[in-house]
Amino acid sequence: MNFNQILKIVKSEKVARLATAAPNLQPYLTPVVFVLYKNSIFIPLDHKPKSISFKQLKRVKNIQRNPKVAFLVDNYNDDWKKLWFVLLIGNATVVEKRESENNNHNDIRKVHDLLLEKYIQYSKVETGTSYIKISVLRGFHWGWGTKKQINKKRTEN
Amino acid sequence: MNFNQILKIVKSEKVARLATAAPNLQPYLTPVVFVLYKNSIFIPLDHKPKSISFKQLKRVKNIQRNPKVAFLVDNYNDDWKKLWFVLLIGNATVVEKRESENNNHNDIRKVHDLLLEKYIQYSKVETGTSYIKISVLRGFHWGWGTKKQINKKRTEN
Repeated sequence: MNFNQILKIVKSEKVARLATAAPNLQPYLTPVVFVLYKNSIFIPLDHKPKSISFKQLKRVKNIQRNPKVAFLVDNYNDDWKKLWFVLLIGNATVVEKRESENNNHNDIRKVHDLLLEKYIQYSKVETGTSYIKISVLRGFHWGWGTKKQINKKRTEN
Repeated sequence: MNFNQILKIVKSEKVARLATAAPNLQPYLTPVVFVLYKNSIFIPLDHKPKSISFKQLKRVKNIQRNPKVAFLVDNYNDDWKKLWFVLLIGNATVVEKRESENNNHNDIRKVHDLLLEKYIQYSKVETGTSYIKISVLRGFHWGWGTKKQINKKRTEN
């Protein structure tokens, strides 16, 4: 399975899990929705109910101090021969629409459009104006009977 | 939702995701099966196909150098009002059956029995003799409209 095939699997999934790590080595984990655009993962810091502002979210604070993340999509099935997962390793940044207006406004607009296309729920929930952007460094695919590591050069930030 | 209610939710789920972190702050993420026993999570290092021995697994090497882990169960639903997740934060160790014969052999045997009861698949797949054991320090429950943090004292190792 090559890198493009791995990304195709990722793209078709609706939910993933994002792991970040604090400087004290404590990992943190959260389910996320996302879109794939130009080989990067974009996770909206959206308006699903949160008790704190997005800047206070553990995942955001961790990323600002340590950009290394892991991103997982997987399939659980009672038939274990159908189990598989895809793990992406990358570096994350928080991209705000305001900051991005000068340089990559079109990208953010496109990501916003992709989100609305993928998740009908965003017709009722605000997507927000900030995203976690993951530049993917490496991808792994595991399935029952297969395990392959695909290396990929770092994408541009 | 109190801590026991959180653990009850965790217990009823078949799959979870485990995040570990390497000393260089790179998080790692994998789907896992598990049982809950005496307020600890036990994840078998079983005989699902692996290209390397369990001692070489990234999750095991990470835990041996950094015991801090995050453990997530969640529910994705197209109706986002039904979204929820439970995050457990804890310290992990690798427990081998041989080592445990003197002190907690009965615990390991009980965990083995619980696994066979929860996962019929282990009638055909070896459970192995080693487990990642997570002593849970804290639990969080998030649901649409609710977010609560439950603190709990560290359980005995």
